[in-house]
Amino acid sequence: MGNEFRLSDLAARIGARVVGGEGEDAVVSGVAPIEEAGPGQVTFLANRKLARFARDSNASGIIAREAVPGAHTAFLISDNPYLAFACVVEMFHPPARFTPGISDKAAVDPSAHLGKDVTVSPCVVIEEGAEVGDRTVLFPGVYVGKGVSIGSDCLAYPNVVLYHGVKVGSRVILHAGCVIGSDGFGFAPTPEGFRKIPQVGTVEIEDDVEIGANTTIDRATLGVTRVCRGAKLDNLIQVAHNVVIGGNTVIAAQAGISGSTRIGSRVMIGGQAGLAGHLEVEDGILLGAKCGVPDSLRASDSRVWSGIPVMPHPTWLRLSALMPKVPELFRRVKRLEEGKNQKGET
Amino acid sequence: MGNEFRLSDLAARIGARVVGGEGEDAVVSGVAPIEEAGPGQVTFLANRKLARFARDSNASGIIAREAVPGAHTAFLISDNPYLAFACVVEMFHPPARFTPGISDKAAVDPSAHLGKDVTVSPCVVIEEGAEVGDRTVLFPGVYVGKGVSIGSDCLAYPNVVLYHGVKVGSRVILHAGCVIGSDGFGFAPTPEGFRKIPQVGTVEIEDDVEIGANTTIDRATLGVTRVCRGAKLDNLIQVAHNVVIGGNTVIAAQAGISGSTRIGSRVMIGGQAGLAGHLEVEDGILLGAKCGVPDSLRASDSRVWSGIPVMPHPTWLRLSALMPKVPELFRRVKRLEEGKNQKGET
Amino acid sequence: MGNEFRLSDLAARIGARVVGGEGEDAVVSGVAPIEEAGPGQVTFLANRKLARFARDSNASGIIAREAVPGAHTAFLISDNPYLAFACVVEMFHPPARFTPGISDKAAVDPSAHLGKDVTVSPCVVIEEGAEVGDRTVLFPGVYVGKGVSIGSDCLAYPNVVLYHGVKVGSRVILHAGCVIGSDGFGFAPTPEGFRKIPQVGTVEIEDDVEIGANTTIDRATLGVTRVCRGAKLDNLIQVAHNVVIGGNTVIAAQAGISGSTRIGSRVMIGGQAGLAGHLEVEDGILLGAKCGVPDSLRASDSRVWSGIPVMPHPTWLRLSALMPKVPELFRRVKRLEEGKNQKGET
Repeated sequence: MGNEFRLSDLAARIGARVVGGEGEDAVVSGVAPIEEAGPGQVTFLANRKLARFARDSNASGIIAREAVPGAHTAFLISDNPYLAFACVVEMFHPPARFTPGISDKAAVDPSAHLGKDVTVSPCVVIEEGAEVGDRTVLFPGVYVGKGVSIGSDCLAYPNVVLYHGVKVGSRVILHAGCVIGSDGFGFAPTPEGFRKIPQVGTVEIEDDVEIGANTTIDRATLGVTRVCRGAKLDNLIQVAHNVVIGGNTVIAAQAGISGSTRIGSRVMIGGQAGLAGHLEVEDGILLGAKCGVPDSLRASDSRVWSGIPVMPHPTWLRLSALMPKVPELFRRVKRLEEGKNQKGET
Repeated sequence: MGNEFRLSDLAARIGARVVGGEGEDAVVSGVAPIEEAGPGQVTFLANRKLARFARDSNASGIIAREAVPGAHTAFLISDNPYLAFACVVEMFHPPARFTPGISDKAAVDPSAHLGKDVTVSPCVVIEEGAEVGDRTVLFPGVYVGKGVSIGSDCLAYPNVVLYHGVKVGSRVILHAGCVIGSDGFGFAPTPEGFRKIPQVGTVEIEDDVEIGANTTIDRATLGVTRVCRGAKLDNLIQVAHNVVIGGNTVIAAQAGISGSTRIGSRVMIGGQAGLAGHLEVEDGILLGAKCGVPDSLRASDSRVWSGIPVMPHPTWLRLSALMPKVPELFRRVKRLEEGKNQKGET
Repeated sequence: MGNEFRLSDLAARIGARVVGGEGEDAVVSGVAPIEEAGPGQVTFLANRKLARFARDSNASGIIAREAVPGAHTAFLISDNPYLAFACVVEMFHPPARFTPGISDKAAVDPSAHLGKDVTVSPCVVIEEGAEVGDRTVLFPGVYVGKGVSIGSDCLAYPNVVLYHGVKVGSRVILHAGCVIGSDGFGFAPTPEGFRKIPQVGTVEIEDDVEIGANTTIDRATLGVTRVCRGAKLDNLIQVAHNVVIGGNTVIAAQAGISGSTRIGSRVMIGGQAGLAGHLEVEDGILLGAKCGVPDSLRASDSRVWSGIPVMPHPTWLRLSALMPKVPELFRRVKRLEEGKNQKGET
């Protein structure tokens, strides 16, 4: 929106070197995807598959690990183009500013403690004894239950629900409709039907976590369901009671983690993956999309797992390729049983 | 609710022919499922499996492609009984009317532009610069972010969230709790943890789209996540950043579509299906429930795909039938290796 | 919170016998998970795998089916330790009390009928003709549509949405963001695109049901989508139009049930399971996590089913173990075809 920079400004900010094109004095006024970027725009190339777009591009600059032969545009050479791109996008699109203050259409309990420059939008409800840190922004319809504590510089988008007692760190982003602290799913069978096990634990979300839209994180039966520092959760994920998600772990949309399971640090979980309860996934493990994990996984057995149930990823790849040929395998075995199809026969 | 029609009125409306029963002067006052419809009610038969209910029915009329032999009720013969049924249901249940106006418990920014006869319910929040078209109804708790544009004759059910800048066409139905425009899931790894990639694109929902309850559609990193005209999305679906969903495509509940994937027109996607990112699904393809799509799919290879990972549907059907027999296949191969079970042996 | 009891008090309440440790006069002031419980705390052992924690525990008491040899703590011996634990937790954590009354930030239609001691929080909207039973608590942001009826002693957590006409029994718990009564997913194909089938049925939730956060239950096309007495649904579940869920059935998170399917009583459905439409699952059946059910299931064929598509659970277990060996099976068959690997050869 009116921001203009020279390529040299961008390069200085991201520690890149400018090569080719019209040189580092070219002026750019925006970012665009590589398929669409034109003159006056900068783009990035993180995925080699898209190199053909770089060759034909009229963009004024492309952030990339190395120049693409045959391209006539300028390149900003960076070791981590994706990160460099994040920084450049922020130069053109600085984070939204909010006007602090408490809407008269919000309902804030007098015993709640709000920090400096908090934004409390219309239709926000903050219950007894809750604490909200400095500069945190609560969008409309956010519910902050009794005794909840939220740190500073958080963003809670519309209709986020924090049940009573939940703790949220600083610089946490909670997307619309996510629910933190709903009751864990526990019932004791009795002759008259199921009896609810009171869920009297809580949830703790540590600093720098991001939680996706409509994701649900249940409170512990006793103790704490915990999402550790820097973890990133996508939309529509289910995290059951007493789960622990390690630091800097990344979970894609619609994955589900059953009760009391412990996920290590720097784990990556694909979309729609499902993990059974009471198991452990070691640090650094990668779980493929849609996989099913019935038991604990050790990194020493395999770093990447896929399939239902999971197996080491290379095995899954071989199996996947062969699955459509299984019906033919049945026919081949039948022929063998009939004594056909062998060397020297038929 | 007090509406009464002769079968001849219904027949005229839907272009059907009345045969059998008490003829076209019979009066009906309501619709009911075929298992339950009695005298004075009309029902429909879209699924041949339910023909037995038609034979025993005391309904005053059954909308069907052809009369069911042995039935004693009147039939309204129509080429598209399901569509005809839709029209008849509307005769008995005209769409709800809403009282236009702006609740004093809503919060509407003075710079927002509202069309004629808009309904703004209590606890709706409309931010700076947003536009809402004529006759659109915003139920309680709906959030319309800064600069959002919604067309005319839309219904946004309670607690729908439209993040800033999102565009919605006309005659769009947004079910409760759906979230349009939340941040795409993009993070650059750094030695200190993940760095958020600002998601500065948007979402465009074209005319005549319907989005299910608690479905989430992420904004593009750059550019647009797009749901084209006439597409219908069920509940709890995840649509990631930069996805394009073609016109008149239908997606069942809990399906998930990863980033930058392009779905063609008139595609049908079954429930809980999962599609990886950066792939293409051609026009008119059908994807079975719970399938997993790792790569692009061409209609010329197969029109219907199922399985994890997907394969042509007939192959999947054969494989499905054989899967429980795989353990036995292992035993059969073992016997062959031991030199047994072959013609002329043992 | 200041509550203290002797072990003998707990034992009397749950009908348990105290053995070992310091005897029944020991005083406890709280509950904790078995891994963490220390002096002054009581815990429980429902899962034999955790017996090692009992041996090392310094808890003042452990509720269990039998004493663990080698442990030095007191045991409260109970036939149903999980149920006994539920009762003990309630002694220490009595249910939250709410202050009845109607917030002036709520919007209640004058024609709505509220029972005694109802709690209507800020930003609740109750439409025309709705009824809310005695002592029911509506948290902030709850939407009660036109003509909805809710029984007594219910809890509706923040942002629950009840579309018009839905009926909810007594002692029902609705977790945050769940949506009851959204339109079923029905469209008739026409040459111009899809035509919406009006969804003019409703949803009935019977007594003692619990519905998880962000779960969606669609209204019937005609007739009723029904969740019978005592059923428990976890988070992010999809229940399509005209489904019937039997009494005391338990469904884990992210499962999905397609239109018109009938689930019996006391069925247990694992997380991420998917059921096709128009099928029947008999009483008492167990469905494994992530399974796919294409057809009706009879208990006489198998009580437990797993896999995609489902097969009797023991078959699935054998198949699961063999799946990673399928690539090797292809090689073994190839060798057989080449005339190798047989008795008396090569």
